[in-house]
Amino acid sequence: MAAAAETTDGLQEVPNRRVILKRYVTGFPTEDDMEVVTGTARLAVPPGSAAVVLKNLYVSCDPYMRGRMTKHDRPSYVPDFVLGEALLNFGVCKVIASGHPDFKVGDLVWGMTGWEEYTLISNPQSLFKISHTDVPLSYYTGVLGMPGLTAWAGFFDVGKPKKGDYVFVSAASGAVGQLVGQLAKLTGCYVVGSAGSDEKVNLLKTKFGFDDAFNYKKEHDLNAALRRYFPQGIDIYFENVGGPMLEAVLSNMRNHGRIPVCGMISQYNLEQPEGVHNLFEIVAKRLRMEGFMVFDYFSQYRKFEEEMVGYLKEGKISYIEDIADGLEKAPGALIGLYSGRNVGKQLVAIAQE
Amino acid sequence: MAAAAETTDGLQEVPNRRVILKRYVTGFPTEDDMEVVTGTARLAVPPGSAAVVLKNLYVSCDPYMRGRMTKHDRPSYVPDFVLGEALLNFGVCKVIASGHPDFKVGDLVWGMTGWEEYTLISNPQSLFKISHTDVPLSYYTGVLGMPGLTAWAGFFDVGKPKKGDYVFVSAASGAVGQLVGQLAKLTGCYVVGSAGSDEKVNLLKTKFGFDDAFNYKKEHDLNAALRRYFPQGIDIYFENVGGPMLEAVLSNMRNHGRIPVCGMISQYNLEQPEGVHNLFEIVAKRLRMEGFMVFDYFSQYRKFEEEMVGYLKEGKISYIEDIADGLEKAPGALIGLYSGRNVGKQLVAIAQE
Ligand SMILES: NC(=O)c1ccc[n+]([C@@H]2O[C@H](COP(=O)([O-])OP(=O)(O)OC[C@H]3O[C@@H](n4cnc5c(N)ncnc54)[C@H](OP(=O)(O)O)[C@@H]3O)[C@@H](O)[C@H]2O)c1
Ligand SMILES: NC(=O)c1ccc[n+]([C@@H]2O[C@H](COP(=O)([O-])OP(=O)(O)OC[C@H]3O[C@@H](n4cnc5c(N)ncnc54)[C@H](OP(=O)(O)O)[C@@H]3O)[C@@H](O)[C@H]2O)c1
Repeated sequence: MAAAAETTDGLQEVPNRRVILKRYVTGFPTEDDMEVVTGTARLAVPPGSAAVVLKNLYVSCDPYMRGRMTKHDRPSYVPDFVLGEALLNFGVCKVIASGHPDFKVGDLVWGMTGWEEYTLISNPQSLFKISHTDVPLSYYTGVLGMPGLTAWAGFFDVGKPKKGDYVFVSAASGAVGQLVGQLAKLTGCYVVGSAGSDEKVNLLKTKFGFDDAFNYKKEHDLNAALRRYFPQGIDIYFENVGGPMLEAVLSNMRNHGRIPVCGMISQYNLEQPEGVHNLFEIVAKRLRMEGFMVFDYFSQYRKFEEEMVGYLKEGKISYIEDIADGLEKAPGALIGLYSGRNVGKQLVAIAQE
Repeated sequence: MAAAAETTDGLQEVPNRRVILKRYVTGFPTEDDMEVVTGTARLAVPPGSAAVVLKNLYVSCDPYMRGRMTKHDRPSYVPDFVLGEALLNFGVCKVIASGHPDFKVGDLVWGMTGWEEYTLISNPQSLFKISHTDVPLSYYTGVLGMPGLTAWAGFFDVGKPKKGDYVFVSAASGAVGQLVGQLAKLTGCYVVGSAGSDEKVNLLKTKFGFDDAFNYKKEHDLNAALRRYFPQGIDIYFENVGGPMLEAVLSNMRNHGRIPVCGMISQYNLEQPEGVHNLFEIVAKRLRMEGFMVFDYFSQYRKFEEEMVGYLKEGKISYIEDIADGLEKAPGALIGLYSGRNVGKQLVAIAQE
């Protein structure tokens, strides 16, 4: 634990390294848009408050964070980060001080926290207690956390898969994609994934059990590639990337196909997003394109958790993580998402339990 | 009835004026792409067959016909028209010869027929018998026919409206749009429509009871226009036009909004369809965009018909038709759809009962 200092009001104050946003971003983010600085943290909760103090063990790097690095004129679907303040995102944490009856010192939780060593959370009801400690704790940033719930809700609730469906997943080796593919296989679907390197394509086929996979960066004609992998067409497209891939997919969907729209990472850094030109396919093929937000499924978290823990323990689901070591590595790990540097779920290890 | 001639096999043959497709179309169609010619028809069914011969009274002009005027390399969702043959579309007809036990001479029907005076239908099961003759017969090309069922199915089944929803309809004064707006009002929604002339906008407000309406051709910023008409955002967009209007609507949808995708007429004549750039709104707002085809709802036709006939008789729904007189006018009436020349449902009167 960091060296503590006594403050005037008698509360313990310690150094607190944190990753702050230095400037709002347009276009691709760089490490330089963030900075690792040292502030201070109090390791006690304000007297009488129901807050908790968290020691952050792992924080997650998630694509949607890019949106929070933009200064929006009109409110976005998630609040912009505040300049000079620590970035915020999901993490796995240990309660080290608590004024809340439901949380006690030593509890392990996951939820929204800061990119820093210690975070004061004034609304701890938003945190999930971690119930399974016989799986890697870091899994609560991925397969058992937000990306896992995303894959599960998006695939089952939005995608409405049936046995035998032809399923295509983009960004397929990522935090969400690797799970969608495996859930699809468990459902009896035929699954093909796309990813941005041969190493990832190999993982999809050998580790995650995809029926087939391809490196989209090596295909100059995505439409033709999809026609090759899905001569009979696609029933479910789990959409992670948007742009030209979406356009190619629309041309290869089958009648009554479904597109759970999870994200469009290929567009997040473009100042002028690309156009999709063949939306009439939605009519001609009676497609359903439906966006969803994992936040809307938080009430189903425990159901999901039990199901997923079961799969993990039975060896029916594997999960690959890409762990950056230390807060200093966090900015690089985050921006690596937008060039596909991560192999599997990207997260940052900040501290040991 | 036309002058009859005896043929070698003893069957009566009459002249049969018809509108044929002269050449496949790229870009905007012109009257010249079609031709009115005179062929012959037999007014009897082949001995032993279960066919019927129809005398066509009204034929409908529908935007989707443009797609059938294109030569497709890969099969489209509806078959291409055949060069030199009569165009095909929905019409209101009288049975004048029948080999089918369910149809007798004198029956009034609606269904797929030819753009000609007489048509031999070899699969009459696809025809709907007309049950109500106390409403204008022509209504069976519109409010009680294919466009009516389209509005009803698309709005209720796909749009899933709730009382109080904010509803936007494009091409709002047309065959489908005028009904969507009125059904939305009957459901207790707030409804705004867009149309391409001040005359149409006026109709929307005075005749069809839209809460508000605007002439999209006079708005240089559709996004701003929609923000003005829907300061609180749109819950349901009934999509008839596509392109820039869709893009502007996406920016103005509310969370969990629904977009029944009925058609995209603004794109039908473009050799290079326009791109839609802000599809990420589908994620951020958890939108559902869902295409549908009226054909999939034909099994519900009788239920729809009773409901709609009820509304018409109670005066709860009005319907405006734009009737071209005579087959010669049919090519012009059809291409008029793509410049908005029609005011209300466009159809062609071919013959009296
Ligand atoms: N709706 C929700 O609630 C929700 C929740 C979580 C995540 N998401 C979305 O789900 C998607 C996947 O997230 P994740 O956490 O699983 O991330 P991830 O896949 O682990 O990491 C991002 C991956 O995206 C791919 N990528 C980056 N730039 C790309 C581009 N220009 N074109 C195509 N692919 C590109 C890269 O893989 P390659 O090497 O394969 O290119 C990269 O590794 C994202 O769009 C994210 O925003 C949505
Ligand atoms: N999915 C299905 O099963 C199904 C069934 C029937 C119809 N539809 C579709 O529903 C839509 C409406 O059909 P309808 O029969 O009711 O036709 P309609 O509205 O009666 O006639 C077409 C109207 O479209 C508008 N329009 C033409 N070109 C346009 C452009 N470039 N931009 C914007 N608006 C344009 C014009 O009205 P303005 O003067 O207002 O521009 C024109 O009057 C069409 O997209 C059609 O394909 C789909």
